[in-house]
Amino acid sequence: MQRRKSQIQPANLKKKAIGFVVSEFRREAGFSQERLSADRGFERTYLSRVERGILNPTAIRLWTIANALNAPFHAMVNRMESWVAEQEKARHQR
Amino acid sequence: MQRRKSQIQPANLKKKAIGFVVSEFRREAGFSQERLSADRGFERTYLSRVERGILNPTAIRLWTIANALNAPFHAMVNRMESWVAEQEKARHQR
Repeated sequence: MQRRKSQIQPANLKKKAIGFVVSEFRREAGFSQERLSADRGFERTYLSRVERGILNPTAIRLWTIANALNAPFHAMVNRMESWVAEQEKARHQR
Repeated sequence: MQRRKSQIQPANLKKKAIGFVVSEFRREAGFSQERLSADRGFERTYLSRVERGILNPTAIRLWTIANALNAPFHAMVNRMESWVAEQEKARHQR
């Protein structure tokens, strides 16, 4: 019997998805890392680490970033899930 | 000029939204706090504090909880945003 656990993507892939999508949404909204960080009152290095998939932000911080980029949080999350699905599909095709 | 900042919901309301919706999704999926915690390898008291809006989980932890409840993460987030919108509407009507 296959356990449900095995269908859950590893945390590392999720972290990369978060970084990729935050960076993508930020650039689409025309914000620099400097401007977004200053607007929200956090360090640019913090944002840089989130975008590189090094740092795991809290849900509220991510939600606030989406708001600052005038994007619904669920749209950002939807894109993260698609990104993970694309990565997994590519992996299975290799 | 109204600043964009003022349109962003306070962190406390977001934290309550997260707690409310995690609890709602868990109960809809027919999971007890004990079962969900044990499945995902975290403490029941951790989950209890998230559900009471006391603790601010990481985005990955929340995503993993959604997966464990067989729900897309974006569906959970969508519900959180609706909950915040409902709360704000109710506040303006008072």
